Amino acid sequence: MTHPLFETHRKTLDAAVQAAHDRGFYSAYPEVPSGKIYGETAKDDGIAAFKARLNQPFEFKQSPPSSGTVGSEQSPYGFDLGISYPKLDVETAVNAAKAGLEKWMDAGPEARVGICLEILKRLNERSFELGNAVMHTTGQGFMMAFQAGGPHAQDRGLEGVAYAWQEMNRHTRDCTWTKQVSKTDFVNLKKTFHIVPRGIGAVIACSTFPTWNSYGAIFANLATGNATIVKPHPGAVLPLAITVDVIREVLAENGFDPNLALLLADAADEPITKELCTNFDVKIIDYTGSSEFGEWIEQNARQAVVFTEKAGVNSLIIDSVEDLKAVTGNLAFTISLYSGQMCTTSQNIYIPKDGIEVNGERMSFDDVAAAFVKAVDWFLGEPKRAVEVLGAIQNPATVERIEQAKKDGGEVLRDSGRVENEMFKDARQHSPVILKVDAAKKDLYMREMFGPIIYLVATDSTEQSIELARSSAICLGAITCGVYSTDDAVLDRTVRAMTTAGVPVSCNLTGHIFVNQSAAFSDFHVTGLNPAGNASLTDGAFVANRFACIQSRIPVPMESAAADQSKEVAGAKA
Amino acid sequence: MTHPLFETHRKTLDAAVQAAHDRGFYSAYPEVPSGKIYGETAKDDGIAAFKARLNQPFEFKQSPPSSGTVGSEQSPYGFDLGISYPKLDVETAVNAAKAGLEKWMDAGPEARVGICLEILKRLNERSFELGNAVMHTTGQGFMMAFQAGGPHAQDRGLEGVAYAWQEMNRHTRDCTWTKQVSKTDFVNLKKTFHIVPRGIGAVIACSTFPTWNSYGAIFANLATGNATIVKPHPGAVLPLAITVDVIREVLAENGFDPNLALLLADAADEPITKELCTNFDVKIIDYTGSSEFGEWIEQNARQAVVFTEKAGVNSLIIDSVEDLKAVTGNLAFTISLYSGQMCTTSQNIYIPKDGIEVNGERMSFDDVAAAFVKAVDWFLGEPKRAVEVLGAIQNPATVERIEQAKKDGGEVLRDSGRVENEMFKDARQHSPVILKVDAAKKDLYMREMFGPIIYLVATDSTEQSIELARSSAICLGAITCGVYSTDDAVLDRTVRAMTTAGVPVSCNLTGHIFVNQSAAFSDFHVTGLNPAGNASLTDGAFVANRFACIQSRIPVPMESAAADQSKEVAGAKA
Repeated sequence: MTHPLFETHRKTLDAAVQAAHDRGFYSAYPEVPSGKIYGETAKDDGIAAFKARLNQPFEFKQSPPSSGTVGSEQSPYGFDLGISYPKLDVETAVNAAKAGLEKWMDAGPEARVGICLEILKRLNERSFELGNAVMHTTGQGFMMAFQAGGPHAQDRGLEGVAYAWQEMNRHTRDCTWTKQVSKTDFVNLKKTFHIVPRGIGAVIACSTFPTWNSYGAIFANLATGNATIVKPHPGAVLPLAITVDVIREVLAENGFDPNLALLLADAADEPITKELCTNFDVKIIDYTGSSEFGEWIEQNARQAVVFTEKAGVNSLIIDSVEDLKAVTGNLAFTISLYSGQMCTTSQNIYIPKDGIEVNGERMSFDDVAAAFVKAVDWFLGEPKRAVEVLGAIQNPATVERIEQAKKDGGEVLRDSGRVENEMFKDARQHSPVILKVDAAKKDLYMREMFGPIIYLVATDSTEQSIELARSSAICLGAITCGVYSTDDAVLDRTVRAMTTAGVPVSCNLTGHIFVNQSAAFSDFHVTGLNPAGNASLTDGAFVANRFACIQSRIPVPMESAAADQSKEVAGAKA
Repeated sequence: MTHPLFETHRKTLDAAVQAAHDRGFYSAYPEVPSGKIYGETAKDDGIAAFKARLNQPFEFKQSPPSSGTVGSEQSPYGFDLGISYPKLDVETAVNAAKAGLEKWMDAGPEARVGICLEILKRLNERSFELGNAVMHTTGQGFMMAFQAGGPHAQDRGLEGVAYAWQEMNRHTRDCTWTKQVSKTDFVNLKKTFHIVPRGIGAVIACSTFPTWNSYGAIFANLATGNATIVKPHPGAVLPLAITVDVIREVLAENGFDPNLALLLADAADEPITKELCTNFDVKIIDYTGSSEFGEWIEQNARQAVVFTEKAGVNSLIIDSVEDLKAVTGNLAFTISLYSGQMCTTSQNIYIPKDGIEVNGERMSFDDVAAAFVKAVDWFLGEPKRAVEVLGAIQNPATVERIEQAKKDGGEVLRDSGRVENEMFKDARQHSPVILKVDAAKKDLYMREMFGPIIYLVATDSTEQSIELARSSAICLGAITCGVYSTDDAVLDRTVRAMTTAGVPVSCNLTGHIFVNQSAAFSDFHVTGLNPAGNASLTDGAFVANRFACIQSRIPVPMESAAADQSKEVAGAKA
């Protein structure tokens, strides 16, 4: 049972499935925001489309009845978006989402996958608009907002579709089962394997990566036959409203109920996530956000399969280096990028207090720290670059946390400062604070300090660095680990210690690749093996439990079975 | 990194992987307890081996230190086994299981899979001994105990290994990732994908199918690099003690710590399952047993991934039949087999109160019911067959439940009676009670009445029958559903209603195939989509979350990458 859109996008699907296995570089959606790729007017069109959304209601066609509106998004670059969204109650949303489920299930994997790929294609065409929407909700610089919020998120969505497709094809859809039960008797059953989706999936998105962190789930849900209710963070609604709008458009065009995808926006002071997550008909939950709320969902959403990405504390271990400048340059970008608001940014940088070997020479802790601070200062010394790379701080609480960190203790090696943005005068932009702490002061750094706050932790030795990084991952969770060493044995020990604590490890990164970058189709993001989350983007476990394969069976005469089998053989030969 | 045992069993593995996809009949371990297959002396050897176990301690070599012994198994056929098992405390078991984990992880998929397949082969050779052990702990008749407890359980184990193998090979184990980052610059990373097991898996087994229900988990755990602590039901320890003994033997022979597999037996009056299931180091739990305890685990074992098979209420819908005798004959076997102590046996048989069409003629409810009772009476009228098929009642509480059911209400159409067993005078054997109830009396039949208790439910119509079967599955869980109809539309409606409630459906079964039979490699057992359990034997979801695939990455020069790639190409061509 194929579908025209399946045929249209078949090549993309096949390439994605292959890439998911091979894990070399692969991307279906170009990350360069170039007019040559996206059309000469794409950039201006994107800005215009974004601006046209401002200060008015965002309306969905054929939406279930809403009771008023919500919406209070503020750009971290200093202005109100002024967009209002339909306000649905949970029960209304759930009932609306249910209505189209049976037809969506019956459509089968090919139709659903084809439609998902068409949606991704159209989202890709809207990448400039999405980039602006992501920029002015998350605070990311435009380049990052475009890439992470557009093509990279679309790649994560495609990854979800590819894994779902593979999983739905793990088993034949029907077969004849023949068993000899005596010398002369056979039992002959025709079996049909029904792919039965769980029903409604709720996707709870975060304020910093509204699309990147949710597309995997949204598309895995849809591809496997589930409806999706998207609950955006009140601070980052627009990128997901546009997303849901595109999904609904393609669903409707293809004769499916657009309410299979719904935006369920709520107000910060009137949250509905708990009600949504404990609704009997919500059978899948994908959550990105704080550890506290993620754990609440894991504990309380007993009716659902729950996938979480929560928070953690990421470590970086410096043991020895060949080229310190190359290392500090790399790290300066890592900690500056989006002001440490990535779940993959290193917070604690462990350095032996007796210093390290640099190209065979001993260098003291303080000299290494000074070189690091200098690299950050140099990198952020170019104002345009600083503004673009740092981006703005999504949440005012993060700015307050910078001050709190300084008050709590540690030696300030580099102070945070406000960064002026020429284009947006009221932008909430702040450079990172870098603090030196002793390894013994665990109360300071053995905690998540989200934002542009970096601890250089002086340890007794690299062995202690590794042990602290490992125990912090086990107790607090971690999503990345970086290590620098000229000694292969140290690299091996770190890889062993951290991977067995559920943390991917980047060794000796310099140049244009950073510990906080995670590439779809190659890097598994979050492992599910430590408190930073219970699932991974994207592996078999991320998709397999979104549906069940359920058989029905009925006796058929042996003749018919024989005919079926010869047909199969003919098919295999064809 | 291959392994001699992997090469030895490679063909079995490949056939199993193929069978898991194709889902036609497949079995690696012969189900016929024949001397021609298992050796002319196998039957006697099995009995002798079983008898040699009785009335003495069961000792494991190289076991962690035990603090005394436990053991109070009684054969449902009327005698004490008198076997004592080492008593371990949870902490001791967990620490012992941890010791060998790293080496087991490092061994890699091929070695682990090869060793698992060797274990299964040796368990297969012990099928007669296991058959006797299963018979005299569960109460199953010997033929069933041999088949379900031996070869069929081994097939379920092989299924776990096959799925684990496939899942561990879903991704390449290493690759070179090359990304062009500017007109002239490339980033070139060597990535290694580490298969990291969760750690320790606890398998909580039940008293009725100690091996069949646990082998999938035990072998999926071991194959994916986890240790396994097997916590048997106090009433059915021996089959799992033998199993663990064989696992330990093969592990030790191959240079691995035998404590990667441990038996953690407890006493009924001093249970340790809650302590085990909430131990921080127990990261996977597979549970078969009561709904109440299963839900406790789901709620409280927050540190672990939890797979449950709990209880349910299975329905059978009779709408219309061609050959009533063929139907009632089939059902007589279904409800007699192991006295309804299978989680797959139908409890509620829904028949319209106005009767059904039989070969085009109307037949009243009471006549259909009478035909059913007559078929059961006839089937059990042959004493040897009755004794063998009914088996014995595992738990005295199940016998009491028969009396309770009669007291609670409904019209007794066929009374239960004690069944004499010539060989075992004190065997706890009882034939089924069949009660007629009105559909309105939901308090009687809308509950699990485990054991030889059958309700014939008089409904307003087949539509109501379907609706009751469906709502019962959604509220109480269900593992099987049978339907008889000469109308394809009724079959389709039933299949739709029940599969979307997470229940496999068997249509019009007559002859040598029964609704309560579930075949490895073809029938998914439990779906995870209703309260009868949260997982399925065996699908991708059953294995994928037992380990994570975690990358480490390190820059390599482009030359080396090119060399690697050409090597790969050469490999692909070879």
